[in-house]
Amino acid sequence: MAEQEVVICEAQLEDASGLAKLLAQVTAETDFITSDDEESQMTVEEAMSFIQSRQLSDNQICLVAHVGNELVGVLNIAAASSGSISHIGDIFVAVAKKYWGYGLGQFLMEAAIDWAEHSGIIRRLELTVQKRNEKAVHIYEKFGFRVEGIKERGARTKDGEFLDVYLMSKLID
Amino acid sequence: MAEQEVVICEAQLEDASGLAKLLAQVTAETDFITSDDEESQMTVEEAMSFIQSRQLSDNQICLVAHVGNELVGVLNIAAASSGSISHIGDIFVAVAKKYWGYGLGQFLMEAAIDWAEHSGIIRRLELTVQKRNEKAVHIYEKFGFRVEGIKERGARTKDGEFLDVYLMSKLID
Repeated sequence: MAEQEVVICEAQLEDASGLAKLLAQVTAETDFITSDDEESQMTVEEAMSFIQSRQLSDNQICLVAHVGNELVGVLNIAAASSGSISHIGDIFVAVAKKYWGYGLGQFLMEAAIDWAEHSGIIRRLELTVQKRNEKAVHIYEKFGFRVEGIKERGARTKDGEFLDVYLMSKLID
Repeated sequence: MAEQEVVICEAQLEDASGLAKLLAQVTAETDFITSDDEESQMTVEEAMSFIQSRQLSDNQICLVAHVGNELVGVLNIAAASSGSISHIGDIFVAVAKKYWGYGLGQFLMEAAIDWAEHSGIIRRLELTVQKRNEKAVHIYEKFGFRVEGIKERGARTKDGEFLDVYLMSKLID
């Protein structure tokens, strides 16, 4: 993709179909993603309503990465609408395997942290990552995330093997 | 309540109104509960659908404690329906302030662990608890939970003060 431009922006309604497709694809492609099957099996209608709820929220955002016409990466920040944890943004990030190694996850993370710092609401970002996914852990550390805890049996592979999962966070001031 | 009997059982549809009332009550009564306002503002209809979804699930349960006709405690175990984290049960427990100190939370926890051990699916129980809530931390430790991590700014009081929150877990074999 040497000649192609990467564009990072907030997900729009017309991204719904691409987003649903990407989520199904990344879950099938890698065992690194720790997710509920329900989240990864989103219909286009569900993706539209998901994108809309993010657009209407002050402390949530869904960022997408496009290469040409293709939606190839997503970074979602979820937060409680109110209450004692509404300052916490929970990050989910995924990039299509074909585009691994080009720094797309890092572009998305950069945009996400910038958004959080300007949100006026988010004071903590958190994420979970399988301990064995060393590349990802290293990238998160580069962005200032630190390991706060290790969740034993925090995930399980398709073969039934239990995995340690890191809980990582970054304070936003 | 020396003369009154405590009954612990799985929540039934007729508990919906009592459950909705209790959740609103405990959130107002204490600053120890780390929750989304949406969860604590459940209508009776939402509570019915919540109870029903728990009854239909193999890896989720909602236990309630009754004293006489009153629903005074709840312990909910939430889990993903499938995927790489469906073996993880996330615990939420709350008891009406009037009934603190009678061991109701412990009765609920005992029933919950017993249920998890016989579920055949749950292999890890987890919960979060504010670090300052030492009594609760001590009780969870008594039941074999251990602190896996400390979430800095894991919650915030109504006055805006940030709090450390423990992530605790117990493996089920």
